[in-house]
Amino acid sequence: MRETAADDGFEPRVRASFARQRVMETIGAALTRVEAGAVEIALPYRADLTQQHGFVHAGIVATILDSACGYAAFSLMPADVAVLTVEYKINLLRPATGDHLVARARVVRSGKTLTVCAGDVVSQTGGAEAVVATMLATVMAVPQRDDLRQ
Amino acid sequence: MRETAADDGFEPRVRASFARQRVMETIGAALTRVEAGAVEIALPYRADLTQQHGFVHAGIVATILDSACGYAAFSLMPADVAVLTVEYKINLLRPATGDHLVARARVVRSGKTLTVCAGDVVSQTGGAEAVVATMLATVMAVPQRDDLRQ
Amino acid sequence: MRETAADDGFEPRVRASFARQRVMETIGAALTRVEAGAVEIALPYRADLTQQHGFVHAGIVATILDSACGYAAFSLMPADVAVLTVEYKINLLRPATGDHLVARARVVRSGKTLTVCAGDVVSQTGGAEAVVATMLATVMAVPQRDDLRQ
Amino acid sequence: MRETAADDGFEPRVRASFARQRVMETIGAALTRVEAGAVEIALPYRADLTQQHGFVHAGIVATILDSACGYAAFSLMPADVAVLTVEYKINLLRPATGDHLVARARVVRSGKTLTVCAGDVVSQTGGAEAVVATMLATVMAVPQRDDLRQ
Repeated sequence: MRETAADDGFEPRVRASFARQRVMETIGAALTRVEAGAVEIALPYRADLTQQHGFVHAGIVATILDSACGYAAFSLMPADVAVLTVEYKINLLRPATGDHLVARARVVRSGKTLTVCAGDVVSQTGGAEAVVATMLATVMAVPQRDDLRQ
Repeated sequence: MRETAADDGFEPRVRASFARQRVMETIGAALTRVEAGAVEIALPYRADLTQQHGFVHAGIVATILDSACGYAAFSLMPADVAVLTVEYKINLLRPATGDHLVARARVVRSGKTLTVCAGDVVSQTGGAEAVVATMLATVMAVPQRDDLRQ
Repeated sequence: MRETAADDGFEPRVRASFARQRVMETIGAALTRVEAGAVEIALPYRADLTQQHGFVHAGIVATILDSACGYAAFSLMPADVAVLTVEYKINLLRPATGDHLVARARVVRSGKTLTVCAGDVVSQTGGAEAVVATMLATVMAVPQRDDLRQ
Repeated sequence: MRETAADDGFEPRVRASFARQRVMETIGAALTRVEAGAVEIALPYRADLTQQHGFVHAGIVATILDSACGYAAFSLMPADVAVLTVEYKINLLRPATGDHLVARARVVRSGKTLTVCAGDVVSQTGGAEAVVATMLATVMAVPQRDDLRQ
């Protein structure tokens, strides 16, 4: 589905908000693609993000995929709203290993208040790619306030 | 529901596995309670774990709650299995702020292969406590292998 | 959590809306309890509601539990809104057999636009009761329109 | 993803099991397509399946989509197992109206014990089609027993 952004300046708006997500710097994630209704976030493997088997922890996988969903939704919203995750569900499909993880999210249904997004995290090793997780998320547009500057 | 552990040594087994989750040290989380079928993990607020509004990122909230669910399930399992998260759903109920976040998970239904867990994350500020997230998770027992040492 | 209804007349309002859910008559479900923030719906076992093993189909289990969640949310809302299910997640814990199924839902977090509810379906046989499913649901208040009369 | 069935006779096996889901006859649903890893179920609109606004109830929408997911998974399994839904999450995207609803499910990840499926329900009116719901489901293969004949 080709989406239309309500705000032409969506890309710098998404990038500026991502830059304020301090957790992304902490885990080493980067915003690698921003389109209207679709966002990609990449995370190089780091041993200090792992669970007990040496795989990247499901919560870290969810962190990049949740943000990718949120920003995919945000890219289609008007400039004067903030975005909050209402809820998501994630299935872990394969161990999150490999050189890089890449979260790719897209808008499934865009509404005035709620946006539903879907996305996957793939693991990349050399040229090979495997899906390690899939998510279905509900994201909400809320009026910006002093404590909710996007 | 009072649960019975299949293995008397469940507490050191859970604590040893948690100690190998390197992401927990990275984010500063601690395993604060281990009972048969119930686990608690605490996370002091840190600005470097936040999203764009200064709240702890939903993915980090999910990281401690997913692990609490996994170890609640693991506490009831026999000693020779490893545990993997199949999937979870999380609702974010309030901004994750406050001095500490505490994830509390309990087993809802314990099966041979699959265990269903539920849990909440509360935010603590002074003596006050508010629920910031709730999760429903499915956890799987798998045979231990060299790459799946629990 | 003890809840406060925004509208004293919530019980007849919930009962009138339930009476318009024609699927409830089709499957034989009854609204057995309405409190502020908590609703119960009962369904006698019927062989014509089953899946291939003779258990009540997961979708029918979800039908009564989704409505119980929706009406638990609706009971706390002002009189001039309609209610729609945004999404839910359900775990099936045991075969849905027995003489009766009873869906019990309660509000977990009540907001102006969104309400989060949780609930279980229990199977009753003689005096015994077992949980067969558990749900976490997000419900939305929307303005009433001609096509959305509650 | 092109899938390979473990059992050449998957189509009659799926059709025979669907025919034993008595709820499908009760609601008027038909199995309209069976491929390896993909199943479609159609449901003509009926006023006696509706919620309070005259839309098909979310639980009925879930009934056909859950079965489509279950049979998409089952189509790839060996002939001697039974299939059970572990859990699913569904987002309702638009009112379930129109002449027909069609549930389309596909396997996302097929494992020995667990299979993850995704699917949509579309509403068809004349030649037009709109997505009304999307689901992510976890399905389990269990050994057949006398009470779990597939």
